[in-house]
Amino acid sequence: MTKNLTKTIQNTIFQNNLLEKDSRIVLGVSGGPDSVCLLNILFNLQKKYSLELIIAHVNYGLRGKDSEQDERFVKTLAEKYGLEMAILKPKIKAKKNLENNLRDIRYIFFEKIRKNNNFDLIAVAHNLDDQVETFLMRLIRGSGLSGLAGMKYQNEKIIRPLLGTTRKEILEYLKKNKLNYRIDKTNAEDLFLRNKIRNKLIPYLKKEFNPNITETIFAETQSIGEDYDFIFSSAQKYNFSQFLSAKKILSFHPAIQKTILRQKIADLKSNLKNIEVSHIEEILKIIKSTKSKHQVVIFKELKITRKGDKVVIRKIK
Amino acid sequence: MTKNLTKTIQNTIFQNNLLEKDSRIVLGVSGGPDSVCLLNILFNLQKKYSLELIIAHVNYGLRGKDSEQDERFVKTLAEKYGLEMAILKPKIKAKKNLENNLRDIRYIFFEKIRKNNNFDLIAVAHNLDDQVETFLMRLIRGSGLSGLAGMKYQNEKIIRPLLGTTRKEILEYLKKNKLNYRIDKTNAEDLFLRNKIRNKLIPYLKKEFNPNITETIFAETQSIGEDYDFIFSSAQKYNFSQFLSAKKILSFHPAIQKTILRQKIADLKSNLKNIEVSHIEEILKIIKSTKSKHQVVIFKELKITRKGDKVVIRKIK
Repeated sequence: MTKNLTKTIQNTIFQNNLLEKDSRIVLGVSGGPDSVCLLNILFNLQKKYSLELIIAHVNYGLRGKDSEQDERFVKTLAEKYGLEMAILKPKIKAKKNLENNLRDIRYIFFEKIRKNNNFDLIAVAHNLDDQVETFLMRLIRGSGLSGLAGMKYQNEKIIRPLLGTTRKEILEYLKKNKLNYRIDKTNAEDLFLRNKIRNKLIPYLKKEFNPNITETIFAETQSIGEDYDFIFSSAQKYNFSQFLSAKKILSFHPAIQKTILRQKIADLKSNLKNIEVSHIEEILKIIKSTKSKHQVVIFKELKITRKGDKVVIRKIK
Repeated sequence: MTKNLTKTIQNTIFQNNLLEKDSRIVLGVSGGPDSVCLLNILFNLQKKYSLELIIAHVNYGLRGKDSEQDERFVKTLAEKYGLEMAILKPKIKAKKNLENNLRDIRYIFFEKIRKNNNFDLIAVAHNLDDQVETFLMRLIRGSGLSGLAGMKYQNEKIIRPLLGTTRKEILEYLKKNKLNYRIDKTNAEDLFLRNKIRNKLIPYLKKEFNPNITETIFAETQSIGEDYDFIFSSAQKYNFSQFLSAKKILSFHPAIQKTILRQKIADLKSNLKNIEVSHIEEILKIIKSTKSKHQVVIFKELKITRKGDKVVIRKIK
């Protein structure tokens, strides 16, 4: 099915309404196969759509010489395609949730480049296999709907034109068009589990259960994404800024109660890593409690206090 | 953790508010390990809760002598516990979706016994492993949220006190208490896939990825069940009796559009077997179409017609 990946992607763009004529797009390029492929394809479509493209690259400097070579490689690409390039070299402090921090750093940078240049969109190069691997990782570790919901083709300013494309199709395209790329060695934290899912679990499921397992699970992530979007937007109608009313929150459907709490925590901590169903239930227990006296619970850098009907969740250090 | 399964189940009953003092319960007993265990445990709790119990057994007659022996076995159980017993011997016509038909026959019979005796509840003996296996079967075949959502501890009149209990705990309990049971050989249609998931996939996931995989996935099915319940009840506000208004349905969130259509089809066909995402999308295509002329599409024993704003879905043979 790799007959002509540019045409396939053009179709994806059209069906999902990802960009318009004259769109101005910041293109996140790490130098890995996915982003090299996306860059090449968007360059192919540049004339047809009269796109304006700018490359954004983050050099985390975490892999010494390798990081420098990545940067040089992307610079060469930018020259080859005649595109402008923005580079960020952030100062990384050793932290627990490194991968999440790197992602935050990346997207904040992309958004800054977009705004500064008055551009419309940010294109990133996630593929179908990334999506399915992430789903299985989260399923195996335990996750609610928000975790099982896949990335979308478009999420506000961010577009993912390769999301429906398999890694195999991308590698075939690169080979056929003699495009070089760098091997990405980052994503350290999850790499072990992700590789095991990629190299062992998925081939096993393919062989023993369903030869189209990746496509099947991909469709499921898309459908779950739509369902989660409905629940999320229903929960957003409740404006939980300073404190929440115990009475009011208990008037909602349990699914909405949990979504509101997860969203509040995500706002405070900038992600939901290490927050499990049991933590949400712990907070709900406080909210449901009929004890009248002042209550305080602390876990995972969160402080939950309740006094009468008022429940406050704060972040502590 | 099988210290005392009766106590654990009593806890489950209390936490999920499954029954009250003086509850009158129809107990579905096949003679298999799960239902023998449930019968024994509810009998243990009978005095404490002053329960009234009646056994209901369906003899499908599909396995000749084995079916007769199952019936005799359950009769002996009823005598041993001093309980009344109702038996159904339905006439089965060879049909495609046999398993679904058997389930329908069973639940219709249980409900009839409940109503005739003016009883409160129907107890069935699904366990945690059933739930996780079903989830994985549906995930592998491809399913939306309604399929991935697990059975609930309580669904209207039906209660499942063993739902949080593993097959291992049940078998240990039976052994410890020297309780005999029959080996269930039915569920022919799904048996191959289910057995493969039970005997190969789950042990593989346990060994290679997460020793608590069944508990993890079980928690996910419960959480997804809650989320699906919210979407389902949101969709139910739209009363789609004779026809649906294309304009009105398109005013809803896509998650709700699909849930309304799936629910309509489930009502018509009595289940959603063989109805895939692509079929729902086919119907949505007709609903979204701006062609003004009369449109008719037929698939999976469904006839969808559209004329102007009016869309009708009917079952055909």
